[in-house]
Amino acid sequence: MSEDGTDDRTAHLVERMFSGDRVALARLMTLVENRAAELPALMSRVYPRTGGAHVIGITGPPGAGKSTLTDRLTARFRALGKKVGVVAVDPTSPFIGGAVLGDRIRMQSHFLDPGVFIRSLASRGSHGGVARATRDVIRLLDAYGSDVVLVETVGVGQTELDVMRLADTTIVVLVPEAGDAVQVMKAGLLEIADLFVVNKADREGAERMKSELMQMLHLRPASTWSIPVLLTQAAADVGVDEVLRALEAHRGLGQADPERARLRRERRADDLIDLLDEELRRRLAVGLDEGADGLARMMDAVRGGTLDPYTAALRILDDARTLSALLMRPREQ
Amino acid sequence: MSEDGTDDRTAHLVERMFSGDRVALARLMTLVENRAAELPALMSRVYPRTGGAHVIGITGPPGAGKSTLTDRLTARFRALGKKVGVVAVDPTSPFIGGAVLGDRIRMQSHFLDPGVFIRSLASRGSHGGVARATRDVIRLLDAYGSDVVLVETVGVGQTELDVMRLADTTIVVLVPEAGDAVQVMKAGLLEIADLFVVNKADREGAERMKSELMQMLHLRPASTWSIPVLLTQAAADVGVDEVLRALEAHRGLGQADPERARLRRERRADDLIDLLDEELRRRLAVGLDEGADGLARMMDAVRGGTLDPYTAALRILDDARTLSALLMRPREQ
Repeated sequence: MSEDGTDDRTAHLVERMFSGDRVALARLMTLVENRAAELPALMSRVYPRTGGAHVIGITGPPGAGKSTLTDRLTARFRALGKKVGVVAVDPTSPFIGGAVLGDRIRMQSHFLDPGVFIRSLASRGSHGGVARATRDVIRLLDAYGSDVVLVETVGVGQTELDVMRLADTTIVVLVPEAGDAVQVMKAGLLEIADLFVVNKADREGAERMKSELMQMLHLRPASTWSIPVLLTQAAADVGVDEVLRALEAHRGLGQADPERARLRRERRADDLIDLLDEELRRRLAVGLDEGADGLARMMDAVRGGTLDPYTAALRILDDARTLSALLMRPREQ
Repeated sequence: MSEDGTDDRTAHLVERMFSGDRVALARLMTLVENRAAELPALMSRVYPRTGGAHVIGITGPPGAGKSTLTDRLTARFRALGKKVGVVAVDPTSPFIGGAVLGDRIRMQSHFLDPGVFIRSLASRGSHGGVARATRDVIRLLDAYGSDVVLVETVGVGQTELDVMRLADTTIVVLVPEAGDAVQVMKAGLLEIADLFVVNKADREGAERMKSELMQMLHLRPASTWSIPVLLTQAAADVGVDEVLRALEAHRGLGQADPERARLRRERRADDLIDLLDEELRRRLAVGLDEGADGLARMMDAVRGGTLDPYTAALRILDDARTLSALLMRPREQ
């Protein structure tokens, strides 16, 4: 075990990842996805190498064609000689297992390309765990030397909105039949979009949806970036070049924007709170489960319903000795 | 301030709520939604009165007709003389504000009915905050004496799946054009559904979607509950009685199911961890922001990007005195 808490094996994995070893990268991603206790130590080694990648979020309702667009953009970036990372955030599907990833087959051509690294993250667990794992996987891909990291969500909900906050540029993909623009607004997508794509634009209603979106965008406060609404048929590779150009234009702008600089500052402070909170939550769960400091009887009462969790929480928070026993345990050496 | 940490005014609000005061209920909901520090004390008073309501979750992609179905079910339950609570979980829409709630106008007839209480929860913030606020708002409605609590989400993603875990019975609402059944599986909806509703069933593809869903359901392990797939046209009030019957049948079953009893036990333990974690996270955020115990310089370095958050987290976790100063601060009396 080295001084900073990573064991030598992990430190070695990080070094191998820096030198371009894909197997090492995959193993580090597994550590990150499992939220291993050594995660802060691992990531503190990785962090100094981050900041070079353009992180592009791709979200929208199921069936909008996000995977296809991701595939097309990957091909474009590869043609430009760029190294690409792809993160697909999929919900858990415990009894179907890997089967739902079948449509990743579309990405199959890229699997054999050493310039592309693809990772599916199951969005198991709650409490912000998915967004945290995604954040750290993006950073691994960034430190690995990816020029572009594409982050695709399957669902569209609060967690997916959180994931999109990790992106430098966010694409919201819709289809003409996805409902009217009001549904988009209701799903919170209007606030996060840097770029709208109306995919499957050969279908009826595409132009109507585009003009509805543009009308809604006029309600936004004036900004240095005017959000484009682009029509694509990703499956037929139509309109993808325009998406690429808009991505580049948005990136060029983003670096200088003072509002984005402020958000970056706040995000770093939030990251610190998240990391501390994650470790404390881990200690809480372990300590309560083991019945630390005589808590076993209290936990039985809570599980059995004879003591409500609110009253139990108050008792623990009011008892400095118990709280300290739960939280201040020395880290395992 | 009384012994358990609620101030007298809050204790008084709780008493008024128990006696049927809607204004008191609304104020308590605001305290809960704002995650007031006195929340555990407040909820420990409320909790003993909970357990009587049938909590019904309604989720599915935007535009599927969830609000309309909620409206129709509310009318049915009212006709049966039942007291109904409705919680609508809406994503934040900071610059549009309340406008997106315009479609709640559909629920307008119920707003004037003293037997119905409707609350919209903005899903602002992350870190499980929405699911927590929703859980506590459901409990307030339960303790208020609601026979049924309908919980409707706008989006469909990880947070929405978490919210649905709070329900005794979950309805997944789809429309024929929502894509094929594989999309449903991808969005994680198959695992949480106790009941599928294919709404707008007069449209093309409804029967096909129904048979696809039923085929997928055959892949599930055998269970005491066979998940029905019902066709509705909620706007025309067609098929709603069948939904109601399925809800009642599922409820009758749910009480006795040993698997559900086990989940309830685990959920109570999780609730306790959540409550403790929420308070500790609050203390962390305040302490770091105020630069407790000389942390101000470290926070500046983190915000400015000269110290990465992972290294900062390790330093704090390794320093028992600082950690203690952050977490063990006495509660304000």
